Amino acid sequence: MTVSFTPNLLGPRVDERLAAFLDGWRAPVTDQDVVAAYRLLIDFILTGGKRVRPQLCYWGWRGAGGEDCEEIISAAASLELCHAGLLIHDDIMDGSELRRGRSTVHRSLAHLHAGPGAEAFGQAGGILLGTLSLAWSDALLSSCGVEPARLRAAHHLFDAMRAEVISGQYLDILSQLRTGASVEQALTTIRYKTAKYTVERPLQIGGALAGGTPELLASYSAFGLPLGEAFQLRDDVLGTFGSSEETGKSALDDLRDGKQTVLFAQAVERATPAQLAYLRTWHGNPELAEEHAAEMRQILLDTGAIDRVESMIEERAGQAVEALDAAPIMPEARVALTALTAQLAHRDS
Amino acid sequence: MTVSFTPNLLGPRVDERLAAFLDGWRAPVTDQDVVAAYRLLIDFILTGGKRVRPQLCYWGWRGAGGEDCEEIISAAASLELCHAGLLIHDDIMDGSELRRGRSTVHRSLAHLHAGPGAEAFGQAGGILLGTLSLAWSDALLSSCGVEPARLRAAHHLFDAMRAEVISGQYLDILSQLRTGASVEQALTTIRYKTAKYTVERPLQIGGALAGGTPELLASYSAFGLPLGEAFQLRDDVLGTFGSSEETGKSALDDLRDGKQTVLFAQAVERATPAQLAYLRTWHGNPELAEEHAAEMRQILLDTGAIDRVESMIEERAGQAVEALDAAPIMPEARVALTALTAQLAHRDS
Repeated sequence: MTVSFTPNLLGPRVDERLAAFLDGWRAPVTDQDVVAAYRLLIDFILTGGKRVRPQLCYWGWRGAGGEDCEEIISAAASLELCHAGLLIHDDIMDGSELRRGRSTVHRSLAHLHAGPGAEAFGQAGGILLGTLSLAWSDALLSSCGVEPARLRAAHHLFDAMRAEVISGQYLDILSQLRTGASVEQALTTIRYKTAKYTVERPLQIGGALAGGTPELLASYSAFGLPLGEAFQLRDDVLGTFGSSEETGKSALDDLRDGKQTVLFAQAVERATPAQLAYLRTWHGNPELAEEHAAEMRQILLDTGAIDRVESMIEERAGQAVEALDAAPIMPEARVALTALTAQLAHRDS
Repeated sequence: MTVSFTPNLLGPRVDERLAAFLDGWRAPVTDQDVVAAYRLLIDFILTGGKRVRPQLCYWGWRGAGGEDCEEIISAAASLELCHAGLLIHDDIMDGSELRRGRSTVHRSLAHLHAGPGAEAFGQAGGILLGTLSLAWSDALLSSCGVEPARLRAAHHLFDAMRAEVISGQYLDILSQLRTGASVEQALTTIRYKTAKYTVERPLQIGGALAGGTPELLASYSAFGLPLGEAFQLRDDVLGTFGSSEETGKSALDDLRDGKQTVLFAQAVERATPAQLAYLRTWHGNPELAEEHAAEMRQILLDTGAIDRVESMIEERAGQAVEALDAAPIMPEARVALTALTAQLAHRDS
């Protein structure tokens, strides 16, 4: 089953809040190139993105009995600023050219200043703009207007989330140095890099802002972790088999960067010696072209790695639905999170 | 007059607070390479560094009438975590090898994983660890324990500070693409990159945490901006003329990176055609070796650029002292800040 992301009502509210917040952050210097860099960053933040983390944060709040209000929209929007900053840094680390169907931020900066040194300038500028977006994230969360004790509790979770996602990303880059991560190792990476960061913590941050009980926050873990893993497993499949029109990213990046995905680990476990030799030759090879990617995709199919990952997604989506059924949350939130579960596990972009 | 940094009583208290805080942040995953990366980061944060920003934050608090307490030590220490994160990123952007007399964080990471891909791994890992330190900074400030309304006011200044330093650093990397920044342009860069970030905002953050009046915060600007400029002008002189034993950095980096310092801009304004040709050939040239650096230093002396910068430092130190005399602050703070003024403008490392 494939369900497209349906336009949601929250997205536009989050975007509006982000636009208003960012409008208050003009470049502190008048230099036109700094102003242009701010514009580029703000444009990246406001254009594209599925606002997954803000939606989960919002429904985490509603699930805990929080009423719809502007404070939770601000807090939810702050997660998008964090995400934008991490994506900008991630694209530098991976040397990616495309994001959200457009040039990545560091590539755009390099284009703005074509000439000797443009490449290094783009990377340096991208590090700075990513850090700025991360700082804005914290500024928006800290000023969202929720009462101080609850904000403190949520901020602790926000702090944990940042340490977790960074550790997960660190595991991810380590795995590219180590040939042959096991399925188990690849699952640990996505638990930190994605499942906690994208689903569990956003739900819990919303829940904590609304004064949710420890029992409620634990139920968000039980629901969020398997759903987050399913989300990343789907992302890995789309990253290799999706078209760049759909995903906004190159379908060669994961293979060329040698990403030790669960999908790849499943293929390695099942490959014949000849298939294995091919995978080892081209995985992480900067010379990889579309023809090699096509052959690798065929191996992912022929070994049954794809089927296995699809089963893993189903298992985890099932676990998430079960945990959601048992969670002590408000009915509207249950309905919304059930719909989000299907979208996140089965999306096609 | 040259005054060495004297050991201060605050430094050890800040270090102790940092160590206790960091002890609470164990790596969330058990992977030994992640644990090693955490250790490396914590070691970088705790070893070396003059704790300039925490001292200014502390005396900003005391100047506003705040009593000595643990809350202000925590808030002051948070600035050091921010600074560590920015330094780690800065060293990646500049491709620096040495910091605080040791291998930079990204170089240490590359050493840990020698082999193909080690260089890129070090840079990616350094981006992540720098971001982690920045996140910790925010976590420590947000949990320092000062009452919420004052913490909010200080957090706004902290947010402004981060946007300002990033804009200043962006101006700095832009200037490396543009040949021939004027003295005025170079001064704008250091105002944002250093003066506001290192002196003005730390003082004001301390002041705001203690409930300081707008008049007090304005007096911290009047004092902090000239002192911060003097500090950076001194840093530029040391960066080119200091020994790496004293500064912990290479005395070639600024010249090889083509840093458009005020010192360099002064030399360009005063150079003969032959001197100018030499400066243009070697400034920002990756092939620059010690012999070329020695010749460039001679030109900086012969043109009178050094003398001019020393005068600029004196002027600014004088303005700072005058502003401090007029500032409505507590007597102990006035004494401490007067001593700090001499140390920051005249230090030899």
